[in-house]
Amino acid sequence: MTEKATETKVDEAQSAALELAKYSDERRSDGLYAIADAIEASHEAILEANEVDVAEAETMLEAGEYSQALVDRLKLTPTKLESIAEMVRSVAEQDDPLGKTQTARKLDDGLELYEQTVPIGVVGTIFESRPDALVQIAALALKSGNAVILKGGSEASESNRVLYEIIREATADAPDGWAQLIEARADVDTILEMDDAIDLVMPRGSSEFVRYIQDNTSIPVLGHTEGVCHVYVDSEADLEMATEVAYDAKVQYPAVCNAVETLLVHEDVAETFLPEAVDRYEAADVELRGDERTREIVDVESATEEDWSTEYGDLILSIRVVNSLEAALDHITTYGSKHTESILTEDGDRASTFMRSLDSASVFHNASTRFSDGYRFGLGAEVGISTGKIHARGPVGLEGLTTYQYYLEGDGQCVGTYAGADGKEYLHEDFDGTWTPGSRSE
Amino acid sequence: MTEKATETKVDEAQSAALELAKYSDERRSDGLYAIADAIEASHEAILEANEVDVAEAETMLEAGEYSQALVDRLKLTPTKLESIAEMVRSVAEQDDPLGKTQTARKLDDGLELYEQTVPIGVVGTIFESRPDALVQIAALALKSGNAVILKGGSEASESNRVLYEIIREATADAPDGWAQLIEARADVDTILEMDDAIDLVMPRGSSEFVRYIQDNTSIPVLGHTEGVCHVYVDSEADLEMATEVAYDAKVQYPAVCNAVETLLVHEDVAETFLPEAVDRYEAADVELRGDERTREIVDVESATEEDWSTEYGDLILSIRVVNSLEAALDHITTYGSKHTESILTEDGDRASTFMRSLDSASVFHNASTRFSDGYRFGLGAEVGISTGKIHARGPVGLEGLTTYQYYLEGDGQCVGTYAGADGKEYLHEDFDGTWTPGSRSE
Repeated sequence: MTEKATETKVDEAQSAALELAKYSDERRSDGLYAIADAIEASHEAILEANEVDVAEAETMLEAGEYSQALVDRLKLTPTKLESIAEMVRSVAEQDDPLGKTQTARKLDDGLELYEQTVPIGVVGTIFESRPDALVQIAALALKSGNAVILKGGSEASESNRVLYEIIREATADAPDGWAQLIEARADVDTILEMDDAIDLVMPRGSSEFVRYIQDNTSIPVLGHTEGVCHVYVDSEADLEMATEVAYDAKVQYPAVCNAVETLLVHEDVAETFLPEAVDRYEAADVELRGDERTREIVDVESATEEDWSTEYGDLILSIRVVNSLEAALDHITTYGSKHTESILTEDGDRASTFMRSLDSASVFHNASTRFSDGYRFGLGAEVGISTGKIHARGPVGLEGLTTYQYYLEGDGQCVGTYAGADGKEYLHEDFDGTWTPGSRSE
Repeated sequence: MTEKATETKVDEAQSAALELAKYSDERRSDGLYAIADAIEASHEAILEANEVDVAEAETMLEAGEYSQALVDRLKLTPTKLESIAEMVRSVAEQDDPLGKTQTARKLDDGLELYEQTVPIGVVGTIFESRPDALVQIAALALKSGNAVILKGGSEASESNRVLYEIIREATADAPDGWAQLIEARADVDTILEMDDAIDLVMPRGSSEFVRYIQDNTSIPVLGHTEGVCHVYVDSEADLEMATEVAYDAKVQYPAVCNAVETLLVHEDVAETFLPEAVDRYEAADVELRGDERTREIVDVESATEEDWSTEYGDLILSIRVVNSLEAALDHITTYGSKHTESILTEDGDRASTFMRSLDSASVFHNASTRFSDGYRFGLGAEVGISTGKIHARGPVGLEGLTTYQYYLEGDGQCVGTYAGADGKEYLHEDFDGTWTPGSRSE
């Protein structure tokens, strides 16, 4: 059997999207429960395929091509499969993101406008080597009524193929073609050109990769390139709290995008704060790099200009002493990536100035940057984190996979009636109402 | 004096944006009132500059390069200036789109998350030759706290320069550089490359032009390419109403994107409906083009395949007889541009099927497609119409120039406290609350 062309797959997804948009929440969620059950019933087949991927990856590891971390992320176990099935069920249990009336407005008697949440349509996703990513993304797409193109890492190709088949068979009740798997790297470029058929691209991976996607498509892209996050210890900080929060922001999980990369310290508190903070960090094997003023107080390596805009994703932290709140803001504006910043201060006015002066997606007061996460924010499952400013930003939940449509219910109104000096006036009265088929009264 | 480089102007706008974001609604609106007053006080200078543009355009008209319509759009009069000033005041009077708390959620006691509306930042706009467009766009940007790059049509360059100077002087209280005028066509390409500094591009103009912008930037683009709108006269339509609405949708103002281009008629009513509808259209000098089945009933020109996807923007209408609601949906899905479609039917179920099966921005039941407009929808001033599905769609008001930021107010919380099997549980309780500086209780 010849493999279908990528264009055909995308066309199928486009037709399926229009059908899927009409499915009730119950039908979409039933599909998710069926996926969870099928994963549980297919442990053997999944683990067998995964072993092939892992064996291949271990050969690459020996050849020095892959890292141990990659092999670890790739490897599935019965316990991991159990938690994947649980994740799918938890997506099913989320509130329906579709069919919500966001605004109901009477334009005139008998002419009612409804702003309704609807799926985006066809979402193209390109993701890393963890095979659980495929299941998570497919689950979120189905719950939000979107057709989805899935392109996983080639390292996970055997696992992805088996998981995809399980999902496809479990959702036989969903419109045929709602989920499509593509495998070749070249197919990514085909997808990026199909701007008439694909409504949104969501890449996950390195900054370079996300930037490559942004630069090579006119389809809107939702993703994040870098997470250069800051913690600013203000002159009015509670220093004991500051030490705890600054430590948590780096050490609790340094590999992720919401971990702090640069610590800014007000000069008034630097001499008191830095020695103890540095002790804590060093006990956790954090490599520290400071500017000149920092190094006058504590014995750390020297930070270069490049450090200020680097996302380490590791147990490395750069430190700078600043002489004012404004200098801290300048630093963040110059070097930051608009992801997450936190001010530690007991002065509400200074906190407010900090929060209102930055255009980062998340700005915190007296809390660790690590809270910047869909689960912690209570958004349910997380689609990803966006550092763009358009559509959805920060941690993105199911809502980020929806858009809206305007429904207008009339009884024969013409614009001519309302035009010109003698035209009828519009009412424009918002009311509490929900669009349901044929909802307009009369 | 040397003209500043475009890059410098954009950098200035970026700094100004961060300042402007902190301005109160009152301060932003005061700027708008000052602009309106200054326009009223400067009729003479504006009209003088405009005469230069108009004289130049008339030369081009004689040379056959410009149309009379372009010259008409270009020409300002005291009455027109009066209505421009009024428009600016009406923007000032709109509700503040900024600083609204969209969600307030207790993650834990003493840890409160607020989703706040904020400006997008720097918006790049490229617009047609009407000089009132410059004032309208600048007014909407100021009200929504955005810095703006203004690139108008070269035909209006003298008028635009004077209007820009008036705006700049009237808003001396606003952060320096919040509005920037660029004039050379080459500067557009510079702007399209500045994806680190410009957050959104809003082009207005021909489909080809908007598509050029989309294809040549990785900045998100808000705009619309085509408006191929449909009216479908269903088998269950009230034919008298259908005749009125279908007529209004084409004839009331044919040059605009929400005018109907293709009329689809169910075969059960075609013989009754078409003769009368055609009489009405012909009396208004509408050129009609029909498919074969239409031409069996009425005497009109023959429609080609190309007609179905053409936005005429003129008194031309294509007509097709379809044998079912599904065939109408297929036609719209195949040839439409996801702008606005309307079904005329007395059957609520069929209307609901129509509305839920299409992914156009606006889908109407028993109303003219011409209602698809920010003013008529009650959005206040209209930034533009978007046929994309991301961020804002359909008629876009001030809200489309905003995004959101997450503010988190804590008292020293660390993620470590909530991590692992023994970790504290999150509360995730939404509450009615508004973020104001230092708003967290305690």
